Amino acid sequence: MRATRTPRAKRREQIVETAVEVFGRQGYRQGSLKDVADAVGLTAQGLLHHFPTKEALLMATLDHRGMAHLDAMNRAKPGAGFTAVGRYILQENLEHPGFMRLYITLSAEATDPEHPAHEYFVARYERSRELFMDAFRDGVQAGEIDSSIDADLAASQLVAMMDGLQLQKLLRPELDVLKTYDDAVHRLLGVRVGS
Amino acid sequence: MRATRTPRAKRREQIVETAVEVFGRQGYRQGSLKDVADAVGLTAQGLLHHFPTKEALLMATLDHRGMAHLDAMNRAKPGAGFTAVGRYILQENLEHPGFMRLYITLSAEATDPEHPAHEYFVARYERSRELFMDAFRDGVQAGEIDSSIDADLAASQLVAMMDGLQLQKLLRPELDVLKTYDDAVHRLLGVRVGS
Repeated sequence: MRATRTPRAKRREQIVETAVEVFGRQGYRQGSLKDVADAVGLTAQGLLHHFPTKEALLMATLDHRGMAHLDAMNRAKPGAGFTAVGRYILQENLEHPGFMRLYITLSAEATDPEHPAHEYFVARYERSRELFMDAFRDGVQAGEIDSSIDADLAASQLVAMMDGLQLQKLLRPELDVLKTYDDAVHRLLGVRVGS
Repeated sequence: MRATRTPRAKRREQIVETAVEVFGRQGYRQGSLKDVADAVGLTAQGLLHHFPTKEALLMATLDHRGMAHLDAMNRAKPGAGFTAVGRYILQENLEHPGFMRLYITLSAEATDPEHPAHEYFVARYERSRELFMDAFRDGVQAGEIDSSIDADLAASQLVAMMDGLQLQKLLRPELDVLKTYDDAVHRLLGVRVGS
């Protein structure tokens, strides 16, 4: 990468982080490019120089954290240890409540097949379930997870638990997401996660 | 109730059922009163005679199924049998996919404190959790549920599982919601629900 590209890449990252906050607070359909531009000190025209459309900015926003989550998955221990990835993602999202709201609102909006992020969310669900499923199968083979556990069902359950707890947190701020997740993993899979 | 009120009550119900479909397909913010009016053969003016505002129609839409769910809760067996209520609500929503989409989309949209349905969803979560929690405490006392189970955590987990599975179903139609729920209840609470 040439050094001259760095300021542009930094600017881009700043725009994406701001868009997460704006779309997270106002929703994608209500959030405007102008609000994002104002917050980073650009004109709307200047912003379009970095992202040609609102949809392009949306996808960059989703990819931004998606990359951090993918990193976590790649660093994860195989087998039962994989449940720690779910915990890490929840912890990350708790530290970025704007993104948590964006993610939950968009995944619901995107159930509409006409939504620009529909394919993204369909693929994301498929991939998350597969990663969990493979990890749980490894865990059963390694004797870390009880062999009565159906990896397919358990993967759907863990993904549902993560989504549902985040939605609930946004409506009930006093919910202890990590404690509830840890207990659910313990009961659903018979393994201990967390501190 | 006077017999002369019946046609009006019927008309009202027809409007609400149509609104569930329209808001469920297009979302509340995008769905229009005119689409609802067209579908039931009324003018927009005629519709306003039944519901003075779009927000009033939204609340009636939420109450409509909310009543069916409350009925189910009132008919439920105490203790562990209460998990059957969750199953019944899921089954109901699977039969009314328009409502399922409306419910999931709105609960996410309504995490915004400025949303007209915010208070409704906050109260609904509080009430659902309390009902599950009381039932699980009864179940522990009656010896139906293992005493190591924390009723507070289990209630949050069941509600999260129900929401998460419905969101997942909308993005992955092949998901067997009831089978996954039954297995989760069995693992989370040690009780059998379903057929």
